[in-house]
Amino acid sequence: MSDMKLDIAHSALLVMDFQTKVVEGYVVDQDRLLSATDGVIAAARHHGLRVIYVVVAFRTGFPEISPYNKVFSALKASGGVAAEIHPRIAPAAGEIIVTKRRVSAFMGTDLDMILRSNGIHTLVMCGVVTGGVVLSTCCHASDTDYRVLVLRDCCSDIDQSAHALLVEKIFPRHATILTSIELIHILKG
Amino acid sequence: MSDMKLDIAHSALLVMDFQTKVVEGYVVDQDRLLSATDGVIAAARHHGLRVIYVVVAFRTGFPEISPYNKVFSALKASGGVAAEIHPRIAPAAGEIIVTKRRVSAFMGTDLDMILRSNGIHTLVMCGVVTGGVVLSTCCHASDTDYRVLVLRDCCSDIDQSAHALLVEKIFPRHATILTSIELIHILKG
Amino acid sequence: MSDMKLDIAHSALLVMDFQTKVVEGYVVDQDRLLSATDGVIAAARHHGLRVIYVVVAFRTGFPEISPYNKVFSALKASGGVAAEIHPRIAPAAGEIIVTKRRVSAFMGTDLDMILRSNGIHTLVMCGVVTGGVVLSTCCHASDTDYRVLVLRDCCSDIDQSAHALLVEKIFPRHATILTSIELIHILKG
Amino acid sequence: MSDMKLDIAHSALLVMDFQTKVVEGYVVDQDRLLSATDGVIAAARHHGLRVIYVVVAFRTGFPEISPYNKVFSALKASGGVAAEIHPRIAPAAGEIIVTKRRVSAFMGTDLDMILRSNGIHTLVMCGVVTGGVVLSTCCHASDTDYRVLVLRDCCSDIDQSAHALLVEKIFPRHATILTSIELIHILKG
Repeated sequence: MSDMKLDIAHSALLVMDFQTKVVEGYVVDQDRLLSATDGVIAAARHHGLRVIYVVVAFRTGFPEISPYNKVFSALKASGGVAAEIHPRIAPAAGEIIVTKRRVSAFMGTDLDMILRSNGIHTLVMCGVVTGGVVLSTCCHASDTDYRVLVLRDCCSDIDQSAHALLVEKIFPRHATILTSIELIHILKG
Repeated sequence: MSDMKLDIAHSALLVMDFQTKVVEGYVVDQDRLLSATDGVIAAARHHGLRVIYVVVAFRTGFPEISPYNKVFSALKASGGVAAEIHPRIAPAAGEIIVTKRRVSAFMGTDLDMILRSNGIHTLVMCGVVTGGVVLSTCCHASDTDYRVLVLRDCCSDIDQSAHALLVEKIFPRHATILTSIELIHILKG
Repeated sequence: MSDMKLDIAHSALLVMDFQTKVVEGYVVDQDRLLSATDGVIAAARHHGLRVIYVVVAFRTGFPEISPYNKVFSALKASGGVAAEIHPRIAPAAGEIIVTKRRVSAFMGTDLDMILRSNGIHTLVMCGVVTGGVVLSTCCHASDTDYRVLVLRDCCSDIDQSAHALLVEKIFPRHATILTSIELIHILKG
Repeated sequence: MSDMKLDIAHSALLVMDFQTKVVEGYVVDQDRLLSATDGVIAAARHHGLRVIYVVVAFRTGFPEISPYNKVFSALKASGGVAAEIHPRIAPAAGEIIVTKRRVSAFMGTDLDMILRSNGIHTLVMCGVVTGGVVLSTCCHASDTDYRVLVLRDCCSDIDQSAHALLVEKIFPRHATILTSIELIHILKG
C-alpha cells in the first residue's frame, strides 16, 4: 500500500452508524475502535479529505419500516436506536450527516446525489457493523463504480470471525483494504 | 368521476412544495389554491386518508446541488428557499414530511420506501408548481406503477397556459384528473 | 444559440422510440420528422457524437407490465408494439440500443450506467412522442444532473398543441431547446 | 424449517450466473451443485414456483463497464464471459432471463420492476458465486423489503471458507437459509 495515492479532492471518508448505542451494543473493544477512527477523522480534516457521517434513524412511529423487512421489523420491535453519534467522534460544524432507514447508506438516501454533485469518486469506509452497513454499502458502491477503500481497524462486528473473513476475503473483491495508520500515511503524502 | 372509488387504506395524499415562499412566489390566486387544498386535507384527515407532505430544502452550503443542474444552480445562486410550509395548510402532529433536493419527490428521498412499506399504491397529488414537482413526480409515479390522481385546483403554475395544458392533455396520459370537490365526494363514499 | 458549444466527447445523442409502428401511429408529418432526425444522426456520426438508441419492447407475455400501470396495461391489451426501428434512421453497426419497459428511458434500464461509465454528462434528445418518452426522460435526466438539449423538430406528438407548449414552456425549465439545424452548426464548430 | 410455508404464487426462484464458464471457472464440485440446483428447478416448475434466470453479459465492446469499476475492468480485460447458461439447468420456454452488468441482479436491470409487476415478495436464491451475485443481490433484496431464502447447497464460491461463513453468519442476518431438499419438502406442502 505504501505507494498508493489518494485523490483527496475527489474522495470522502464515510463514518457509518457510529451511534453511541450501536457502538456500545456491537463493539468488543470500543476504545480501540474509537481511537483509530478518531485519528483518521482528525487526519482527514487536517488534510482536506471531506468527512461524511451516516446514521440510521426513523421518524416517530417508524413509518419507513416494512413489516416484511426482517432486519428492521426486529429493530422496530425493540424500540429503535437513538441517532446520537458517539461523542468521541462527533461531527464538526458543517459536516454532512446522511440519515438512512435501511442497512446500506445508499438505500432511500441522497448520498449518491451528494457524492456525484461534489465530484467524489472514491469512498473511504469506516463503520459498525462490518457485516451490516459496511458490507451493504461497499457492495452498492462498487456496483455504482465508486472506488472503495475499507479501513479494517475502523470497522467492527459483534462476530469477530465474520469481521476477519469479510475484511480478508470478501471486501478485497470490491475494495482496497487499509489500516487507519496506512491511510494517515497516504494523506500525509 | 361520480362512480370512482378510492381504496383509502392503500392511498395517500401528497401535498408538495407548499412552502410559504413558493406559494407567494409562484401562485396567482393564492387564496383559491390554499382554500381548495386546505379543504382536501381536512377531508383526508377526517376520512382516514394518509397525508404526506413533501418539501424542497437543503443543508447549509447546498452540498446536494450539482453545478451542472440548471434548475438548482439557479436556486442556489438566489439563496435557496425556506422550508417552512404555508401556515394555512400546516402538517398535523405525526404527519410525514419528506425532504427532497430535486424537482421530483422520488429523487434521492425515502418516499418510495415509505409508500411501499405502508402498502400504498394510489397517490393523490397536490403541488406547486404544476409543471415542476407535480409533473416530475407524476411521471415517476406512473412509471413505478402507482395509480395517480391529480387534483387540478390544488395545483398551480406561474404560467396558466402551462397549467391548463398539463392538466388537460399531459397528465391524463398517466393519471386521473379530479377537482378537490370531486375527491371530497369520493371520500364521503 | 449561435455561440453555444458542445463537449462532444462527453455527450450523446439519444434517439428514442423511433420504432416504425410508433412513427406511423403518432406522427403527423413523418417525412419532416425523419428527415430532420436522419440529418442529425448523420452529422453526429460524422463529428464523433455518440448515438444511442432507445426502444420500448417486452418479453413474450409482457411480464414487465404491472396491471396497475395505466399506460402499459393499455399497450399490453392492444398487443404491444414491434421493437423494429424505422429503417430511415436505423442504427449503425456497434451503436448501443437500450431497451426500456416504461415511458422514461432511465426506468429499469442500464442507460444511466452506460452514460456514467463513458463519462457522458450531456444528452441531446430526439423522440416520439414529445409528451411521452421525451418529457419523462428529460425530467429524469435533469434531476440526475445531466445537461439536456432537446431538438424540437426531432420530437413529435400526436397532439401538436401539447408538443408546442412542452417545447416552449416546460422543457426550457430543464433544458436548452434547439433545432436540428442549430445542432448541426454547433457540431461543425 | 420443517413447519415453514412458502406463498408460492408470490415467490420466485432466482437462478443467478449459472453460466457454463462461471460454473466451470469457480465451482469446486460442479456435479453436486448442478444436481441440487437442477432438482430444485424441476420441483419449482412442478409446483408452480416461477423460475427467473439472471445472467451477466455485455454488448460488444463492453460499453457498460466503467474504467473505475475494479471487478468489471478486470473482467473486460480478460475478454468477458459467455452468457450461455449451463445446459444441465437450461431455462424452459417462456422463463424470464434478466441480463445484468454488475454483481447485483438489481443494478441497472428490470428485475425489481418484473417482481413488483407480478406481485412477488419472496425470493429464493441460488447462485455462483456465493460471495458475489448471491451476497450483493441478497443485501439489496433485503433492503428493498423482499423476504429472502438462500439455498445453501445451490450456491458455491471458489473460496469454501467464504461460502461457509456467509451462509452461516452473514446471510442469516437478512435471510432464511435452507437446503434444496428442505425447499422441495416445503413445495410439496
